[in-house]
Amino acid sequence: MSLNKLAPRYRQAVEEELRQVVSLVNGKGCEQLHNMLAYHMGWEGENAGEEAQGKRIRPLLVLLTCASAGGQWPHALPAAAAVELVHNFSLIHDDIEDQSPLRRGRPTVWSRWGVAQAINAGDAMFTLAHLSMLRLDKVTSASVAVEACRLINTTSLRLTQGQHLDLAYESQAGLSSDAYWSMVHGKTAALLAASTELGALVAGARQERREAFSEFGAALGLAFQAKDDLLGIWGDVALTGKSTDSDLLSGKKSLPIIFGLSHDGAFAKRWSQGSIFAAEIPTLAAQLEREGARDYTQRTANRLTEQALASLKTAGPQGEAGEALVELTNKLLSRQV
Amino acid sequence: MSLNKLAPRYRQAVEEELRQVVSLVNGKGCEQLHNMLAYHMGWEGENAGEEAQGKRIRPLLVLLTCASAGGQWPHALPAAAAVELVHNFSLIHDDIEDQSPLRRGRPTVWSRWGVAQAINAGDAMFTLAHLSMLRLDKVTSASVAVEACRLINTTSLRLTQGQHLDLAYESQAGLSSDAYWSMVHGKTAALLAASTELGALVAGARQERREAFSEFGAALGLAFQAKDDLLGIWGDVALTGKSTDSDLLSGKKSLPIIFGLSHDGAFAKRWSQGSIFAAEIPTLAAQLEREGARDYTQRTANRLTEQALASLKTAGPQGEAGEALVELTNKLLSRQV
Repeated sequence: MSLNKLAPRYRQAVEEELRQVVSLVNGKGCEQLHNMLAYHMGWEGENAGEEAQGKRIRPLLVLLTCASAGGQWPHALPAAAAVELVHNFSLIHDDIEDQSPLRRGRPTVWSRWGVAQAINAGDAMFTLAHLSMLRLDKVTSASVAVEACRLINTTSLRLTQGQHLDLAYESQAGLSSDAYWSMVHGKTAALLAASTELGALVAGARQERREAFSEFGAALGLAFQAKDDLLGIWGDVALTGKSTDSDLLSGKKSLPIIFGLSHDGAFAKRWSQGSIFAAEIPTLAAQLEREGARDYTQRTANRLTEQALASLKTAGPQGEAGEALVELTNKLLSRQV
Repeated sequence: MSLNKLAPRYRQAVEEELRQVVSLVNGKGCEQLHNMLAYHMGWEGENAGEEAQGKRIRPLLVLLTCASAGGQWPHALPAAAAVELVHNFSLIHDDIEDQSPLRRGRPTVWSRWGVAQAINAGDAMFTLAHLSMLRLDKVTSASVAVEACRLINTTSLRLTQGQHLDLAYESQAGLSSDAYWSMVHGKTAALLAASTELGALVAGARQERREAFSEFGAALGLAFQAKDDLLGIWGDVALTGKSTDSDLLSGKKSLPIIFGLSHDGAFAKRWSQGSIFAAEIPTLAAQLEREGARDYTQRTANRLTEQALASLKTAGPQGEAGEALVELTNKLLSRQV
């Protein structure tokens, strides 16, 4: 209930903040560069709209955490916009690196404007993230702004290290469970942990409470990824939608697949024989389930969610925003898409 | 004399600072990512050494400006390293965008490790630049650190806008003089202006003095580019070295070429007829010189250098570092390579 009440209000404020920051790209002759960013953010071009914009989970977490730690959520808007811009900068570059033609059902920036302009557009987006974060000094203090900038950059360094591992692992046949978690910590959990910590930082929370909020975000990120990996094989879209949506086909190193490979049964045998065909997907997904991979992944997601809720409890979130954080956590775990 | 005395001392401190910052890339399994950055910085791999490292002009400007504005130069090291990292991040990405196989005589990062890893390495380098700049809060104050971060990001936004224009102009036949200067302001002058302003900022200079130092850096950047453009056609390497070193062959939109095109004589006629052959270069360079392009470019470089020296005088630089700034300005203008 609290989530349904707060989320739309926060969302609108976040979009306004984001548009303001992106409008800083206003150099003479740079209209196209602005258009590229506005297109990627889901505001312009074909099929612009809420679906193209994505869920904006990260800024929502920043604002909810700030309010639940006793702060004023509008003060955290520069940080909320910054994390969303970092997230989107990394998507623009990841799409080039993975040669992905589509993102949220639309052509990716590089496939529309070419690799060279897309790399540069990502760089501009990353720069805007910092300019946004620096605005914190107007509503909080210079020292909070410095700490927030340091946090987002330490996190960005973890993101690039996670992406480095992801790209390096592409050429490897298997992947250890350790290596998987290192990568997920960098690629997903780090930015969610930064989001919740930033909210607490802007609220002026003490060190211990900030750490508890950070741990909440990190566990939430890991749980989110485990659930994502489960849906990537047994979700409706993966099983009955376009075959390209199944992680079995794209060869992504996801948690159930790593489990299956370590189990060394019929699934691992088929995997080692080369590319999977679309027609095999339902059979292979069923085989992987029989070997226990679905159960294992679901249990992992459950365990991480409980861990997230425990950290959240330690952080002692207050009021409606605190309730909304609990709701959001449960919702992310029970989602079917 | 002052320059020869100070430059080597500063240079050593800059390299140490840079190595420290780059060593922050220390995640498990990320040794290769660190190697990519160390290779690009000229510390590792084949032909590592001073030539591969480049001139480090920007950090030198930061430190000289700081000292000449009455500050303690070691306090400006985090800013000096930051501008050099921004410069090198942009080189890594520019080389991908321009598909350049070589940089300072060595294979570029993308040609050694592939486009995907190189984009990501550039992102890591950019992140390190911010982490370096944020260290200013330890030696100055949080508010100086915030101002310095804002300056380097405003500058980076100008860099990406300049690069956007550069990429967009590639497909155009001609280029207006206005468009040329917009691009050069973004791609070269902005970062030099930021370097000199940062030195003054760390030294605690007042607003007017900071602006004078900033204008000095900007004019120096424009003069540097004009001279670069001249050497790109009439420099020893361009005329007698490998033909690929001539801007006439690469089709770069440089100042003398833009002058020649607007003059609409024999040079412009030949240019409009399609690709230039290596054998034509000496004749075409001579034709362009007869039409007045060399004179015009040299006069432009002289005028901008005088402007730089005038701004520097207004800024009132002190001591040996002040003398070294004058020497450096004259040296950049009179250089033959």
